[in-house]
Amino acid sequence: MPLLVMKFGGTSVADLDRIRNAARKVQREVERGYDVIVIVSAMSGKTNELVGWVEQTSPLFDAREYDAVVSSGENVTAGLMALTLQEMGVPARSWQGWQVPINTTSTHSAARLVDIPRANIDQKFAEGMKVAVVAGFQGLSPEGRITTLGRGGSDTTAVAFAAAFEAERCDIYTDVDGVYTTDPRITSKARKLPRIAFEEMLELASLGAKVLQTRSVELAMRYKVRLRVLSSFEDGDETSGTLICDEDEIMESKVVNGVASSRDEAKITLVTVEDRPGISAAIFAPLADAGVNVDMIVQNISEKDYDDHPGSVTDMTFSVPINQVERAKRAMEEARQSGQITYDELVVDTEVAKVSVVGIGMRSHAGVAARMFKALADENINIKVISTSEIKISVLIDRKYMELAVQALHDAFELEQA
Amino acid sequence: MPLLVMKFGGTSVADLDRIRNAARKVQREVERGYDVIVIVSAMSGKTNELVGWVEQTSPLFDAREYDAVVSSGENVTAGLMALTLQEMGVPARSWQGWQVPINTTSTHSAARLVDIPRANIDQKFAEGMKVAVVAGFQGLSPEGRITTLGRGGSDTTAVAFAAAFEAERCDIYTDVDGVYTTDPRITSKARKLPRIAFEEMLELASLGAKVLQTRSVELAMRYKVRLRVLSSFEDGDETSGTLICDEDEIMESKVVNGVASSRDEAKITLVTVEDRPGISAAIFAPLADAGVNVDMIVQNISEKDYDDHPGSVTDMTFSVPINQVERAKRAMEEARQSGQITYDELVVDTEVAKVSVVGIGMRSHAGVAARMFKALADENINIKVISTSEIKISVLIDRKYMELAVQALHDAFELEQA
Repeated sequence: MPLLVMKFGGTSVADLDRIRNAARKVQREVERGYDVIVIVSAMSGKTNELVGWVEQTSPLFDAREYDAVVSSGENVTAGLMALTLQEMGVPARSWQGWQVPINTTSTHSAARLVDIPRANIDQKFAEGMKVAVVAGFQGLSPEGRITTLGRGGSDTTAVAFAAAFEAERCDIYTDVDGVYTTDPRITSKARKLPRIAFEEMLELASLGAKVLQTRSVELAMRYKVRLRVLSSFEDGDETSGTLICDEDEIMESKVVNGVASSRDEAKITLVTVEDRPGISAAIFAPLADAGVNVDMIVQNISEKDYDDHPGSVTDMTFSVPINQVERAKRAMEEARQSGQITYDELVVDTEVAKVSVVGIGMRSHAGVAARMFKALADENINIKVISTSEIKISVLIDRKYMELAVQALHDAFELEQA
Repeated sequence: MPLLVMKFGGTSVADLDRIRNAARKVQREVERGYDVIVIVSAMSGKTNELVGWVEQTSPLFDAREYDAVVSSGENVTAGLMALTLQEMGVPARSWQGWQVPINTTSTHSAARLVDIPRANIDQKFAEGMKVAVVAGFQGLSPEGRITTLGRGGSDTTAVAFAAAFEAERCDIYTDVDGVYTTDPRITSKARKLPRIAFEEMLELASLGAKVLQTRSVELAMRYKVRLRVLSSFEDGDETSGTLICDEDEIMESKVVNGVASSRDEAKITLVTVEDRPGISAAIFAPLADAGVNVDMIVQNISEKDYDDHPGSVTDMTFSVPINQVERAKRAMEEARQSGQITYDELVVDTEVAKVSVVGIGMRSHAGVAARMFKALADENINIKVISTSEIKISVLIDRKYMELAVQALHDAFELEQA
């Protein structure tokens, strides 16, 4: 029997009506001949309520108890979804993480999946059950305690089930109807992509397109799970939404498929750093130790010879998430005080944004960077930092130009046209 | 290490402040040198919310899914209670039913406890944990699914843990401060009893004194678990509340210790029943089959010889909970149609109430019934049905006299005085 995994996020199961709506979509797939594994999130708002209670109770909470409390939201939805399906005449039952069991590491609140034994669910399918409803976001530690997977955990659960059960596809139902060429709130010219390659989605996800969490896309890419993102509030068919798949499945890709932007960036510059072998490690090791996520890095190799700096010096610039600026500053100041590094000044610029173009077609096409920089120059937008990967070019610019830059790039790469 | 079981009902853990208040009571017992097992209910209102969702989703719900959904309320409280205790510096952790495991039968929504293995919790106590917080009301079926114990399940969980762990006492914290000689809303002369025997409490519980569920008292009596009922909203000491214990622990008991009343009664009379051997079985077997809880039974042996009933006939009267009247009527009519029984008429009186006096001292004292009937006669209250047990005398009277009867009996047996 072919099998589908269908995942419904919090807004898709926010109340009993929406659960019924989601169940009808499941029923339709059963009628088409699929066995279905449904992964559910908590009803929207419920997880926040539970997290709020935990944080009010204990600011430095025991993550094991946090997980025990917070996981209950998904359990409620799983039971209600199974009941709704039964009411529609579809043989269904619910599974909590420990019942499958979804085995994870012991890293509470940020556990990683270890394995998902199929035996229990397979047996029920063999007995005639058509739908297994599984509480997402949770698992069981080797110590027998409940774990949660952290942000995006339900998407990750869905992809992992699709991999374990060799599903034909993993459909992620959410409150948007697919992946767009760029944020439709920034330009109305944004176009929904029918297909996008894993690698592209990964770059877009990590760049702040909130449709899917990076982690679930990584897992899908590794196990070649065909992922589809679509709206739970629209009627659709097999072609609805956006299919995230191997690039082999995408016939002809454009050079650039998406423009992503992120405003939660800050730029830090260490002025007049001693330029010697090992200096990069001396700077970035303390940042890593402090848990700072450094993104872009630029070293301005300057040959200027300062009076008070007889050797070769340089400026070092990097970007970090804006809410990690204080942590980064502290790590740098401590490294300077302990003599690991030297610099004259630490300059923070919190008025920046990152804009990126992404496309697997870039690999085989030269001139993408030039076309990007020209489009920005035509709008008089100054580029502060550049970084590139195989299928992505990112620039840091003044935040006030972010929307303008996105629109200019969307036009320059003709993303409006299919 | 001596061990206490402390159980907090829904109103005692209704919000974070109340959970903190309950946790302070636990902390105090830990400071006195006890290991403590805390049994918690769901925050008040939560279970009703969950039950409401299930019933709206599926009127004839799958009880297994009902249990999976409804049990989540207790899990939340257990985690929050453990966190609150940790925050106070008390080593604590939570257990969900399946983690202990609390083994039950498979009768979902009304499961019975089978056994509670001590190993997991004992090991943690040995490692220095002071408080095990256990989600009440739930367990694990032999099939590995979550069960719930039905009404009063959390009290029953508490008593079962006290028995399994040989607790010194099982303290039931609730929103009343003990067991009274009668309902204080009926007479302000009602007096809190410092001690009461299991048997008496059992009669009072089954008579509608809502302090404890019958089932938990039965279990306590069987395993000689000393039960204490007290308020979670008052500061107290070891003598607070009411101790429910073996009668050996009660020095000198009065003849009558309590007057109970229940307004949810109905009286059914089958008029002119053929009086033959086996007639009682023919009447009450169909009622039992229909799930009707017959309480009091009176057979008026009448020798009157009706023209159309040549043999001996009788009237049969019994009482049932008022919400089971329709079910009882249907069972009787079906039995008549199928020829199992004969009667001329079925008369229902829904305007009755039951009033009872209870006391273990009754066993060794004659004249209690006479004193009771005289007190009622003095108020011109007509007795419709009488039933007696070793330590209880109950009468069915017109409902409008219920409060008057309670007050008269409370005075007659001098319950105001200790």
